[in-house]
Amino acid sequence: MKQVRVQLILLFSFLLGFAGPHVAAKDPLPSWHDGKTKDDIQEFVSSVTNPTGPHYLQPEQRIAVFDNDGTLLTEKPQYMQVAFCYARIREMVKHDPELAQTQPYKAIAEDDQAFLETASSRDLFNATLVANGGTTSQAYNEMVQKWLKTDTHPNSGKLHTDLIYQPMVELLIFLRANGFKTYICTGSDVDFVRNFSQTAYGVPPEQIIGSSMDYELKETPEGPVIHRKTTLNYFNNKNNKPLNIQRIIGRRPVFAAGNSDGDLAMLQFADHGTGPSFKLLVRHDDANREYAYDKGAEKAHAMAKEKNWHVVSMEKDFKRIYPHSPNRQKPGSSE
Amino acid sequence: MKQVRVQLILLFSFLLGFAGPHVAAKDPLPSWHDGKTKDDIQEFVSSVTNPTGPHYLQPEQRIAVFDNDGTLLTEKPQYMQVAFCYARIREMVKHDPELAQTQPYKAIAEDDQAFLETASSRDLFNATLVANGGTTSQAYNEMVQKWLKTDTHPNSGKLHTDLIYQPMVELLIFLRANGFKTYICTGSDVDFVRNFSQTAYGVPPEQIIGSSMDYELKETPEGPVIHRKTTLNYFNNKNNKPLNIQRIIGRRPVFAAGNSDGDLAMLQFADHGTGPSFKLLVRHDDANREYAYDKGAEKAHAMAKEKNWHVVSMEKDFKRIYPHSPNRQKPGSSE
Repeated sequence: MKQVRVQLILLFSFLLGFAGPHVAAKDPLPSWHDGKTKDDIQEFVSSVTNPTGPHYLQPEQRIAVFDNDGTLLTEKPQYMQVAFCYARIREMVKHDPELAQTQPYKAIAEDDQAFLETASSRDLFNATLVANGGTTSQAYNEMVQKWLKTDTHPNSGKLHTDLIYQPMVELLIFLRANGFKTYICTGSDVDFVRNFSQTAYGVPPEQIIGSSMDYELKETPEGPVIHRKTTLNYFNNKNNKPLNIQRIIGRRPVFAAGNSDGDLAMLQFADHGTGPSFKLLVRHDDANREYAYDKGAEKAHAMAKEKNWHVVSMEKDFKRIYPHSPNRQKPGSSE
Repeated sequence: MKQVRVQLILLFSFLLGFAGPHVAAKDPLPSWHDGKTKDDIQEFVSSVTNPTGPHYLQPEQRIAVFDNDGTLLTEKPQYMQVAFCYARIREMVKHDPELAQTQPYKAIAEDDQAFLETASSRDLFNATLVANGGTTSQAYNEMVQKWLKTDTHPNSGKLHTDLIYQPMVELLIFLRANGFKTYICTGSDVDFVRNFSQTAYGVPPEQIIGSSMDYELKETPEGPVIHRKTTLNYFNNKNNKPLNIQRIIGRRPVFAAGNSDGDLAMLQFADHGTGPSFKLLVRHDDANREYAYDKGAEKAHAMAKEKNWHVVSMEKDFKRIYPHSPNRQKPGSSE
């Protein structure tokens, strides 16, 4: 009889173990300072998952979209995608003497800042397209994987994927634990981000929406393979973000997070109508621990103020910035 | 003690109930005749889900793509998408006297077969684009929903969504029960198919890959809405199917099903390399219960023969065609 009781207890403990996060009172957002932003996130999730409440959303309606650069990881001094393309250009010129003498490749390879600062942004953009294409899809993935394991962020010396924001990763996990499907909607190349989205954020390849290159199908003895051309198929930024969300997801998101004017249309798209939705704008205001800038986010901040969206202060809301960085006390603030 | 035993038995029964389809020996494909095709499907699924076997695929690799028209439902005498567009043209001309006198709208509205048979296919296609756009996304969905509930297939008098192939629906369910993520990859408009994919096939909106119209974002007092233009953004057919699969899923499918040359590139894409994959081509060879035709599928059948893909005979492999139709004995065959 005693043994049966023990077995029963073990069995029930086992069952309870599968009952999920509601059982444990553990903080799901330990890298966020206590305060209004953290409270409001939890209150929102609680209200849309309460089946008897007025704001309940069916699981299939729980679509969350996150910008990548500057929202989930550091985007300074340059976008990760650009860092990759410049690294590839440095490799390309080694094997192509003609390219080595062609601008802006020469300046990129030599890190000629004087030239780069005055170069046309279109020329630089086109150079990144050349570096981002011209291979099979598989060869591209192999290059990106190798680069991710070796290239480091110039200011910190860390691998690029070490510079993800721990509080935002916790937010993604928290949303998924509550039945949300989390997507990344990025201006970077969709195939580029797919190379680290699962390990860095737990977001699988088919939940990345991004810019894309023109592709063509090429025959090989093993069958057809995808070849990446050096021209852009879709630039997933500004208005193109909600348009691509409609094409690929086919539903309006109820949670959207961004950090710049490039994300404004996506945030507005989530803000439509009278149903529950959460709009989060990350503000880069922590020069000590990350970077401080509002450039390129002026319109988004004006709209956030007008519409009462949630602005996340990296300085005041983030207990830590990166997975490897230490926690810090909440700074004294007049808020 | 007796009570405890009863509780234990109840508890274990409960646990076993969650152990899934392996417990019950129920036929997962009851509308398929016994035979090689059915055996091979089950053998394939069994081998790629056996974690100790040589062909095991991780759940995230189990991507299955299905064409829609002619693969999951009847596409004769015309594609469902075209039937919808023609129905809308009949409505449009009622409120637009000028359009009512313009070809090919006039001929479509009047069902003038003599004109339609000689009209240029480009003119007819452009007319369907006009009928398929020019509204907000929401208004489009409402139109499609209304049409789905009222319009009937000309030959059978059934609703269009009654003409789905029951054996293929069972195949989708069987694959999902074994950890596959099932996608529809269709030449029809992605938003059109989203209006019935969940109820007809259990496939959610975000797992539909299709053709798409140009969109634009329009401001309204409630926020930005998607407006459908009358021009085509992407024609999801032939080579564009695998290219779009790469863009949207970012993985190579391991199961692909189609019925025409429009699906050939998608089937070849799944056939790449040395890993396990299943390629299924539906043959329309049942003039009594559906339609019999190979037109537009000649290349796909030639390749299926060369590559030893699975060709499904609707006459011999399907015990029933539609959910509402009766089972039929397997016809005598020389196979």
